[in-house]
Amino acid sequence: MDTNPRRDPADLPADLLATYRRDCPSRTVVEVLANKWSLYVLAALRRSAEPLRFSRLRRQLDGVTQKMLTQTLRSLERDGLVARTVYPTVPPRVEYSLTDLGHAAGELTTAVADWAIDHAARVHAARAAFDARAETLSPR
Amino acid sequence: MDTNPRRDPADLPADLLATYRRDCPSRTVVEVLANKWSLYVLAALRRSAEPLRFSRLRRQLDGVTQKMLTQTLRSLERDGLVARTVYPTVPPRVEYSLTDLGHAAGELTTAVADWAIDHAARVHAARAAFDARAETLSPR
Repeated sequence: MDTNPRRDPADLPADLLATYRRDCPSRTVVEVLANKWSLYVLAALRRSAEPLRFSRLRRQLDGVTQKMLTQTLRSLERDGLVARTVYPTVPPRVEYSLTDLGHAAGELTTAVADWAIDHAARVHAARAAFDARAETLSPR
Repeated sequence: MDTNPRRDPADLPADLLATYRRDCPSRTVVEVLANKWSLYVLAALRRSAEPLRFSRLRRQLDGVTQKMLTQTLRSLERDGLVARTVYPTVPPRVEYSLTDLGHAAGELTTAVADWAIDHAARVHAARAAFDARAETLSPR
């Protein structure tokens, strides 16, 4: 019998534990934001003072393929985060902007992108140090 | 010649544009956080009042495989976000906690997880409405 109470999570107050359950409806919503291109699209739209067209958005997300950006925008539109407006010009003009819901999500993804920019040097230094240690140590 | 200045991004003030360049060092750092399991690990460690062992962490992240959690923790340790402490007991006890850098990142990922929980119903409703429209409309 295990007599160490710290080993049994039932002995811990529930509020100390964050359990992310597989069947929680929020899971698929986290996956919307835990996606590099969704994150950048929301951040770019939030920073733009005006709706953006596909080609502009694509230029701002260096490295995204046309297919990936199309899929990302369609998924964000489906989730109610991005609005797609078609103007009946010839040829039709299509613009993307954030919905209210998307604006709130964009605040978070902008914060993540900013954090990455601000802390990139520290993370890269940690990586280099880790790799140097791994080289001098025997395999763990 | 295109005389519409709005079509040329060079005519827009630079601060209206957020360009996420492929060669920016922050790109690989964004990808650390734009990952479902990293996001949940950081959020779970941040919410815990004490360091967590692998088995406890695994129970809290419902659905994660042993291999995926091992990879995620190693990657977060390499990036300087998670500290791995080995106690020389028999058998050795291994605990995971956030570094200062990881604590800051964990604040963001906790905010993302909380946002997903708070807005899951709205996102799911948007999805259902989008799918219903797609069924009644001809293909776009």
